[in-house]
Amino acid sequence: MTTTGRQLRSTLADDGVLTLELVTQDFPQPTGNMVLVRMEAAPINPSDLFLLTAGADLANAEYTPGKVVARLHPQAAAAQKARMGQSLPVGNEGAGTVIATGETDMARALMGQRVACVPGHAYGEYALCDAAMCLPLGDHTAEEGASSFVNPMTALGFAETARMGGHKALVHAAAASNLGQMLVRICKEDGLGLVNIVRKPEQAELLRKLGAEYVVDSSQPDFEAALAAAIAATDAFIGFDPIGGGTTTDTCLRAMERVAASRLTTFNRYGSSHPKVMYIYGRLDTGPTILTPSYGFGWSVGGWLLTPFLEAAGPEVIGRMRTRVRAGLTTTFASNYKHKVSLDGMLTKAAMTDYARMATGEKYLVTM
Amino acid sequence: MTTTGRQLRSTLADDGVLTLELVTQDFPQPTGNMVLVRMEAAPINPSDLFLLTAGADLANAEYTPGKVVARLHPQAAAAQKARMGQSLPVGNEGAGTVIATGETDMARALMGQRVACVPGHAYGEYALCDAAMCLPLGDHTAEEGASSFVNPMTALGFAETARMGGHKALVHAAAASNLGQMLVRICKEDGLGLVNIVRKPEQAELLRKLGAEYVVDSSQPDFEAALAAAIAATDAFIGFDPIGGGTTTDTCLRAMERVAASRLTTFNRYGSSHPKVMYIYGRLDTGPTILTPSYGFGWSVGGWLLTPFLEAAGPEVIGRMRTRVRAGLTTTFASNYKHKVSLDGMLTKAAMTDYARMATGEKYLVTM
Repeated sequence: MTTTGRQLRSTLADDGVLTLELVTQDFPQPTGNMVLVRMEAAPINPSDLFLLTAGADLANAEYTPGKVVARLHPQAAAAQKARMGQSLPVGNEGAGTVIATGETDMARALMGQRVACVPGHAYGEYALCDAAMCLPLGDHTAEEGASSFVNPMTALGFAETARMGGHKALVHAAAASNLGQMLVRICKEDGLGLVNIVRKPEQAELLRKLGAEYVVDSSQPDFEAALAAAIAATDAFIGFDPIGGGTTTDTCLRAMERVAASRLTTFNRYGSSHPKVMYIYGRLDTGPTILTPSYGFGWSVGGWLLTPFLEAAGPEVIGRMRTRVRAGLTTTFASNYKHKVSLDGMLTKAAMTDYARMATGEKYLVTM
Repeated sequence: MTTTGRQLRSTLADDGVLTLELVTQDFPQPTGNMVLVRMEAAPINPSDLFLLTAGADLANAEYTPGKVVARLHPQAAAAQKARMGQSLPVGNEGAGTVIATGETDMARALMGQRVACVPGHAYGEYALCDAAMCLPLGDHTAEEGASSFVNPMTALGFAETARMGGHKALVHAAAASNLGQMLVRICKEDGLGLVNIVRKPEQAELLRKLGAEYVVDSSQPDFEAALAAAIAATDAFIGFDPIGGGTTTDTCLRAMERVAASRLTTFNRYGSSHPKVMYIYGRLDTGPTILTPSYGFGWSVGGWLLTPFLEAAGPEVIGRMRTRVRAGLTTTFASNYKHKVSLDGMLTKAAMTDYARMATGEKYLVTM
């Protein structure tokens, strides 16, 4: 038995022209531990945009039903040289119903069930998934389960990373996102301190309503002092920054140093040696990261990505995290979507230029 | 018994005016494990310049014998607010002869001996030092022993840090320095791969004469390709950068990524996840560090400083390193000085403007 359905693919030609197209393709009968899922809903996460819109000139693209042809900015094309000529599927995660399975017990147990999954080709009518990565949703809707991997596991991964480093509190930049809201609830449950940095008063209000204790607004004139005060109150010397470019990470390190230096009893020409750690986990700003020489030598900045984190954490930690996500799917890990679009709808000019902005609180859900 | 001698002190006033002055002061009879050393030689290391020249307007300073009064650039003054009003001694390390000791056996055993020491106030006629940090020099001259702590322990610390991270090779920027030359010899002895980055053809020549196998010259047009080729040949995915500001660290990470990405068998939208690590251990360039988003998320950059490294390494590792330094004082750990000055001579306009440039291969030794 083969199943035929539409599937979004992204191809970058040698000349820097990007083609996004819903192609019709066959899905084979799953074997082994694989299952075939009839997809019902899939979110558009920032991490999906690498293949969808990153570097594309969306204003001057050609939009036809089910197809977009756009020119990549030359720098973006150069950076993606390794994928040129390859037709790549798009869509990290989603949810749907299992309609065929391989022969293992684990796969067969999922037959007919609604599951959340991480196929890497979620923008399509069908997806082949590893049963080990499927989360049975029980009575939950596909919409409720569609975002049950990337954001929940990332937010839990931040808490895990902080604890592994011996920290009792963390800083989160651009904290009003779906992921940020989850992190507020996780930290409350775990007794971890959390300093939320937001960019607008209404975002601060939103997080305070969720019970966030420390929210600092970078649009306010006293921002840097307020950030240092929140770090001092919580002892947050580790932080996570989804913006990446510009000075967000630098601002956090400077505020951490301000607190650490204020606790020094004697002058140290190098600044404090108290460890100050920032992780960059996204590129909402694709410009360079600027680090000023303002915090001595007791600091580090690094990239943070879910897959290598999970590989290092190992199956036991992953299992514990997954169990927790399932238990809190409509509470701790609930997602909100501002817009819903169909597969065809996600390829319109209006939708693409909108979700490419990655505005906080403007998340898209694709429903099939 | 008190001993009276001249000692260089650095004082930053509230108005941003820096005074460097040779003051006459009393040194008390040492007690406990302390010894009094009649200083004979002390190097001017980049790390000494924080208190000597950092941010000072040397061109317009007032120079009188034994005294310099200079205005600090406002930004530098703001960054050093914590030391304002304090009279701080200067000079990390040096060598001299023990002329009085405390009552412990360790201290008394050093009486009359020539030792290398790390008093933190080495620019003076006398220094009080902890016997535990003194290195007996035997028949070596004070000049041979003067730089036996900062550079040797830092270079050994790099090798130790690389090994602790499981690396078999490292990258060193601005590698023609005294420290860089030591690192060439250490890596040869230890069988560690080393990629030396220099800025001039004559520096490349110097390192090759020492037996360095991989030397890349950033002044050459094929620099980035040569750097990547050397990284590929050695598997050097950890590096040490004394420049700090600008793009040196970024260039190393990009070259490491180029090598790691070339080894990927499938396209990864995030770039390689192979860990790429850079440490900034100096600020020859005091501008901001620029990190481009060119190497995915499998990277980290951090500060590296000798004292916290030694604290973390513990007494056993320190003891092993010190023994090795003593054994190789005139071979592996030999230093070269381009200029020798007296205590008064180090406070002249000509000397200060010269050593403030921190030019590679232009090291100063102060002799008392």
